[in-house]
Amino acid sequence: MAHDVSIVTEAELRGLVSLNGELIEVIESGFAALAKGKVTMPPILSMELEKANGEVDVKTAYIEGFDGFAIKVSPGFFDNPKLGLASLNGLMIFMSAKTGLVQAVFLDNGYLTDLRTAAAGAVAAKHLAPKEVRVAGVIGTGVQARLQMQAAHLVRPFERLLVFGRDMQKAARCAADLSETLGIDCEMTTDAADLVAQSQLVVTTTPAREPVIKAEWLHKGLHITAMGADQAGKNEIDANALAKADHYVADNGSQCMVSGELEAALAAGVWPEGKMPTELGDVVIGKAEGRRSEADITICDLTGTGAQDTAIATYVAQIMDGVGTKIST
Amino acid sequence: MAHDVSIVTEAELRGLVSLNGELIEVIESGFAALAKGKVTMPPILSMELEKANGEVDVKTAYIEGFDGFAIKVSPGFFDNPKLGLASLNGLMIFMSAKTGLVQAVFLDNGYLTDLRTAAAGAVAAKHLAPKEVRVAGVIGTGVQARLQMQAAHLVRPFERLLVFGRDMQKAARCAADLSETLGIDCEMTTDAADLVAQSQLVVTTTPAREPVIKAEWLHKGLHITAMGADQAGKNEIDANALAKADHYVADNGSQCMVSGELEAALAAGVWPEGKMPTELGDVVIGKAEGRRSEADITICDLTGTGAQDTAIATYVAQIMDGVGTKIST
Repeated sequence: MAHDVSIVTEAELRGLVSLNGELIEVIESGFAALAKGKVTMPPILSMELEKANGEVDVKTAYIEGFDGFAIKVSPGFFDNPKLGLASLNGLMIFMSAKTGLVQAVFLDNGYLTDLRTAAAGAVAAKHLAPKEVRVAGVIGTGVQARLQMQAAHLVRPFERLLVFGRDMQKAARCAADLSETLGIDCEMTTDAADLVAQSQLVVTTTPAREPVIKAEWLHKGLHITAMGADQAGKNEIDANALAKADHYVADNGSQCMVSGELEAALAAGVWPEGKMPTELGDVVIGKAEGRRSEADITICDLTGTGAQDTAIATYVAQIMDGVGTKIST
Repeated sequence: MAHDVSIVTEAELRGLVSLNGELIEVIESGFAALAKGKVTMPPILSMELEKANGEVDVKTAYIEGFDGFAIKVSPGFFDNPKLGLASLNGLMIFMSAKTGLVQAVFLDNGYLTDLRTAAAGAVAAKHLAPKEVRVAGVIGTGVQARLQMQAAHLVRPFERLLVFGRDMQKAARCAADLSETLGIDCEMTTDAADLVAQSQLVVTTTPAREPVIKAEWLHKGLHITAMGADQAGKNEIDANALAKADHYVADNGSQCMVSGELEAALAAGVWPEGKMPTELGDVVIGKAEGRRSEADITICDLTGTGAQDTAIATYVAQIMDGVGTKIST
């Protein structure tokens, strides 16, 4: 029996969905489902293409009660910039959870991933950052630096933003862009320690393999979201910082142990072997505590989950209303 | 930078590619690459959707020297027939092995999988069946029963075909269809033992969990290809048959141990623990022996490999020449 598949391009998706309160709620609901144990999420399929300096990951998750589920294909080919192409690309397939029929193919080139990743940052800030954030800081100057700060600003409307990056030109450009987008005072800084000292909310968005934040920089009333590490070997925050913080929260405990900040903390022996950390979904549904006082130091570790992909893909399928090219197959 | 993605429907794919000698060579080249160790093939991503009586598998493989690689999504939703829908559906994504950019989405509803599976049967028959096959038999009456016999007939042009199925109506229809397609004498039979006794080449194409072929039915000069088992617990051939055969060949040794006929043989203790079987690719490139004499009893176990998907997807991408809908993204 023939059925229609909607093919939706990145441009069409950009017209349909952007970072706002509604999307943050959608992603929050994905974390809530994860916590309620209503998510089936198999391990990531990952393949390396050594000769091409490339890799491809496939993630999926089924959330009970959702009409459909996403299968996300994320290639990363790191010589692409030499060819004038983005390193990260990919698509999402949205399938019926009742029949397995393909409903839509989102040719998003990673746009939906960017959004759901930033929205998870907002969920973390909403539940873990101090109520009052006057100054925020971002480490990194790429797409996620911009999106994370837009997302965080929706839940903690800070007045001032500091941007640190190894490349001063890029940091200045990122600060200028965010100043325009958020309509607030944004400055670049060459001093990451000072950025942390001045901020109540810091987001790290780098592919670092050596910590960019030192444990001694942590101060009362600070929340850090580390979203850069998503693979074994990546590490943005000094292992000792996890011990020093009052509360460490993972998006997914077992993933963070192998590919998040928790990996380095376990290796350094500052996190007890076998101890499962609090998960963000548990905080969202009130099963676990979030921030206990304004003075707490909190860290949230985001590695990215298939549940977020299924949540955003389902949302897009609900609102797309005829957008895209219908192909009968 | 925008790039074009070709969306190709099942109908368009049926116009482009069918079962023929060229396609068999394409799939044979995939097995050859597997044997030469030039394939990266991560474990299958598999997710069960219990409530919907469904499952979805994702396979991929990179073959060195190939321009692209396939990611195949295969959903199986076994209550679909009640809704008038096929149980098996899905699609293949074809990506550049140099940049990771999506080149094409084949909305094939499983058609390319059907073809590459049948073509693997032909590769097995080519290298393992007796040179002279007068009578062939097929156990099972579905799509693969038909395609396997068409494929086998291309490499062993038998004169007569027997069809066995639990449902006599379906067996009769399958025999009638194949008689028309192949232009030879095809009959249904209600006696599987007699089918095996008369045949020099037998293909089993069932989802059986109890053997449909008994060890005592094996006779000199017989080749069996078992392509039905592709999951733990499935089993078409009596475990003792593997011990009785002169030569047992797997499409992929480690896959067959967990999801092919080898699984039951290992469990029954008739296959030595830890002994890696001969693989079809090794036979294709002459690294391992195939059939040694016309009197040999041979068995080939096909569970399906991502290399076959990449081989057929690459072939389709080469010949598609403007077919499909181009979407700029």
